[in-house]
Amino acid sequence: SPEPRTMKSFVAYSPESHFPIENIPWGVIALADGSQHIATRIGDMVLDVHAAILAGLLFSDAASQTIRSALLKPVLNDFMALGKTAWHTARAAVQALLLTGSPLEKHPELLLPAAQTRNVMPATIGDYTDFYASEEHATNVGKMFRDPTNPLLPNWKHIPIGYHGRSSSIVISGTDLHRPNGQLNPEEKLPILAPSKLVDFELEVAAFVGPGNPLGSPISIKDARDHIFGLVVMNDWSARDIQRWEYVPLGPFGGKNWGTTISPWIVTMEALEPFRTHGKPHDVPVLPYLEESKDRSAIDIQLFVHLQAADIPEPAQIVHSNLKYLYWSFEQQLTHHAIVGCNMRPGDLLGSGTISGAEISSFGSMLELSWKGSREIQLPGGATRKFLKDNDTVIMSGYCQGAGFRVGFGEAIGKILPAVPIAN
Amino acid sequence: SPEPRTMKSFVAYSPESHFPIENIPWGVIALADGSQHIATRIGDMVLDVHAAILAGLLFSDAASQTIRSALLKPVLNDFMALGKTAWHTARAAVQALLLTGSPLEKHPELLLPAAQTRNVMPATIGDYTDFYASEEHATNVGKMFRDPTNPLLPNWKHIPIGYHGRSSSIVISGTDLHRPNGQLNPEEKLPILAPSKLVDFELEVAAFVGPGNPLGSPISIKDARDHIFGLVVMNDWSARDIQRWEYVPLGPFGGKNWGTTISPWIVTMEALEPFRTHGKPHDVPVLPYLEESKDRSAIDIQLFVHLQAADIPEPAQIVHSNLKYLYWSFEQQLTHHAIVGCNMRPGDLLGSGTISGAEISSFGSMLELSWKGSREIQLPGGATRKFLKDNDTVIMSGYCQGAGFRVGFGEAIGKILPAVPIAN
Ligand SMILES: [Ca+2]
Ligand SMILES: [Ca+2]
Ligand SMILES: [Mg+2]
Ligand SMILES: [Mg+2]
Ligand code: NI
Repeated sequence: SPEPRTMKSFVAYSPESHFPIENIPWGVIALADGSQHIATRIGDMVLDVHAAILAGLLFSDAASQTIRSALLKPVLNDFMALGKTAWHTARAAVQALLLTGSPLEKHPELLLPAAQTRNVMPATIGDYTDFYASEEHATNVGKMFRDPTNPLLPNWKHIPIGYHGRSSSIVISGTDLHRPNGQLNPEEKLPILAPSKLVDFELEVAAFVGPGNPLGSPISIKDARDHIFGLVVMNDWSARDIQRWEYVPLGPFGGKNWGTTISPWIVTMEALEPFRTHGKPHDVPVLPYLEESKDRSAIDIQLFVHLQAADIPEPAQIVHSNLKYLYWSFEQQLTHHAIVGCNMRPGDLLGSGTISGAEISSFGSMLELSWKGSREIQLPGGATRKFLKDNDTVIMSGYCQGAGFRVGFGEAIGKILPAVPIAN
Repeated sequence: SPEPRTMKSFVAYSPESHFPIENIPWGVIALADGSQHIATRIGDMVLDVHAAILAGLLFSDAASQTIRSALLKPVLNDFMALGKTAWHTARAAVQALLLTGSPLEKHPELLLPAAQTRNVMPATIGDYTDFYASEEHATNVGKMFRDPTNPLLPNWKHIPIGYHGRSSSIVISGTDLHRPNGQLNPEEKLPILAPSKLVDFELEVAAFVGPGNPLGSPISIKDARDHIFGLVVMNDWSARDIQRWEYVPLGPFGGKNWGTTISPWIVTMEALEPFRTHGKPHDVPVLPYLEESKDRSAIDIQLFVHLQAADIPEPAQIVHSNLKYLYWSFEQQLTHHAIVGCNMRPGDLLGSGTISGAEISSFGSMLELSWKGSREIQLPGGATRKFLKDNDTVIMSGYCQGAGFRVGFGEAIGKILPAVPIAN
C-alpha cells in the first residue's frame, strides 16, 4: 500500500472534505438505466468502480478475479464476505488509481460529480440489530423513566444489551419519512390512534458485518474485529409515545420500525484504524468471552447532529458527541450476539445505540436534550424544540480528524413529513 | 376450479395424510446439483413443479407467463408477491394436474417419493416478527413472572404485542440445533457463561407475507387477508434462563435467536379457508383500525407437540392446542405492524406467539407445562421433564380435519444437540 504521507490524488478537495485519499469508502450508486454500481468517493467526485473495472483499470489480473466479481455486483454483500485481506487489496488498488499520474486521469468519464449521482442502499441487510452501548444514554433513560438514584439495570454492565430491529425500513440518506401514526396512551386510560407527538432521532453509528459465522458457531472476541467491514452514521428515528405504550415486555417495535436512516458511504475499518483510541474503562469486570484490551478498542469519531427547519436561519448544531464514548465496543457487541450460536451474514447491520457523552451538548437524542420534554432545546433565532416538528430535517454527520485531513462519513439526512391521514 | 367433492387424484394416500388433493402446499426442494425447485406435495409424493413447467405441463399459455416465471425461481418470494388471483390460478392448475386422467400420469419422473427429497427454506425471509397473540399464554407468563392476580399488562388487549426476531437463524424442519451457551444469572449475583439449563420450545404458527406495502403506507384491516400467502407450523426455541437475565428492557434476544424451526410446506390461505371459524371474542373494545368481524377470523387448526427421547418408548404427545385459541388474528397482527408505516416485503414471516389454550394439555411451552419448572411433565415409561434434555427431539405438527381428509402441515422437527464447548 502507498505510504499515507506521500499520497496525493489528482482530484482536488479541501482539508475539510470527508472523502480524502485516506478514506476510500464503499457505496452503491443507481444509474439512469436502473442498474446499480459499486463506487467510491473522493472529494466531491464519485468513482464508478464497476465502470473502472470494465474499462480494464482495476482487477484485471488473474489473482484479482474474486474481488473483480464481487465488485461487479449491485450491492456490497459479496465483497463484504471476502474478508480483510481482499478488502485491503481492493482498497489499495482503488486508492492507487486515484493518485496523481494514474491511468484514471485519462478517463474523466469514470469520475462523476457527487451532486449528480444518487446513492442507494449499499448492501442487502439480512438482519439489523440495535444495541444500547452508551452508558450515558442508558443512564439518562434510566434516570428519566426508572430510578434517578439507580438508573442502570443489573444486567447492563455484564451484557451489551441489544434487540432485533427491522431491516426492511432502513433507508439511505435523503429519504424523507412520514411522522408515524400509532397507538398512544397519553392519559394512561384508553389508547388512541394518532400521529406520534414525540418524534425523535437517535444519533448512532452502525457496523456492517463482513464474513459471517455458521449457525451454532460463536465468534471469539479476538476474531471479532475481522468480521466487521466498516461503519456508517445512523439515525434510529424513534416515536417516544408509541414506544412507551407498546414496549413492555417485548421491547421496541412500532416506535422504531417506521424508518432508520444510514449515511451512504461505508467507511472501512482500515481507514478508521489510525483513529483508534482507548476505550472507556469497565468498572465492572466482564466475563472472559467479552474481555478485550481497552487499548485501541474505541475509535475517535466526532459525531454531529444539525437541525434544519423553517423557523431557524440555517442548520443548527444541536449535538456534538463521539463514538469513543461507547462503553461496549462493536467487537463486544458482535461476540455477545454470536455467543448463543446466532449466525451473522455479510451485510448484517449492528447499531451502537444512541451515543451520548457526559455533557448535555453531547446527548444523542431529543429525549435526553429536552429531558423527556421538561425543558426547551434553544435554537438560533429564538426557536425552540422538545421533539421534532413536521418538516424538520435532521442532519447527522461524523468524521475523524487527521493531520490536515478528515476521514468522514458524509451525512445521514432525513426530513419528517406530516403524518399520512388515517383512513379508517 | 374443480369442485372439492369430485376431486380425485391418481396418487393414492390415506385419509390421515396431511397432503391430500385439497391441500396443494408450496415448498422448495434441493436437488443433487445444488439447484432449488419449487414443488408441492401430495400424499407421500412430491411434485417437482419447476420440472413440470419445463416439461410443458403447466403454465405454458401466454396468460400464465408471470406465474411461470415466478415458479421457476429458487424460492417462493416472487410468487408470494403476485397476490391471490395468481395464487388461485396456480393452485388450481397444479391441483388439476394431480387429478386422475391428467397428462402427469404419463410423467412419473416428475413425482418423487417425499422420503427421497430434501426441503429447504421456501422463501428468503427479509424480516421475521414474533407476536404474543395467545391470551392464555400471556396470562400464564404473567402469572408466573409478574402478578398472579393481574397477569396481563395494560397494553395487551389493545395492541397485538410483537417484537422483531432474527431471520438468519430460521431453519427448515430437520435441522438439529446445539443447546446455546449464554449469560445466565441463576443466583442473581454474578452472571456466568454456561450452557442454558432451561431450553424450551414454543408451539407457534407463522404466516408468510404475500404482497407487501410501501414504506409509509399502512395496510387496512379489510385488506390484510390479501397480504397473507400461507401458514407454517413454527417452533420458536427459547432458552428461558438466557432470556430472563437479558430481556429487560429491550426484549428477547440471545434467548431466542439461536434457532427457530418451521415446517417445510406452506399451506395456502385458500386451502385453509374451509376451516375458518369464529375468533375469540374480544372483551375489551379495540381501536377501529384493528376492528374485524370475529365471524371466520380464526382457523381451526389442531396443533400437536410430540417429544421423542431415549428414555421414552416412542414419541409422546405432550401438547394438543389449536390456532383458533388466538386472541389476535394474523390480520390484526399485520395491520398493527404496518400502522406506523412499516413496510412488509413478500416472504416476511409473522409468528403467532406461543399458542396455549385453557387446559394444561394445550399449553404450548414447557415453561407453562412445568409451570416454571415447579412440576414434572409426566411421560410414558415413567420418564419426566421440566425442560429439554440433550438429544431430545421436538416434533410439532398440525392439521385441519375435513370430512374424510386432512389439510395438514407435516412436521417441524428439531433435536437439541449438546452445547458446543466454550473455547474462551
Ligand atoms: Ca436505538
Ligand atoms: Ca415466541
Ligand atoms: Mg429505527
Ligand atoms: Mg426463535
Ligand atoms: Ni377457480
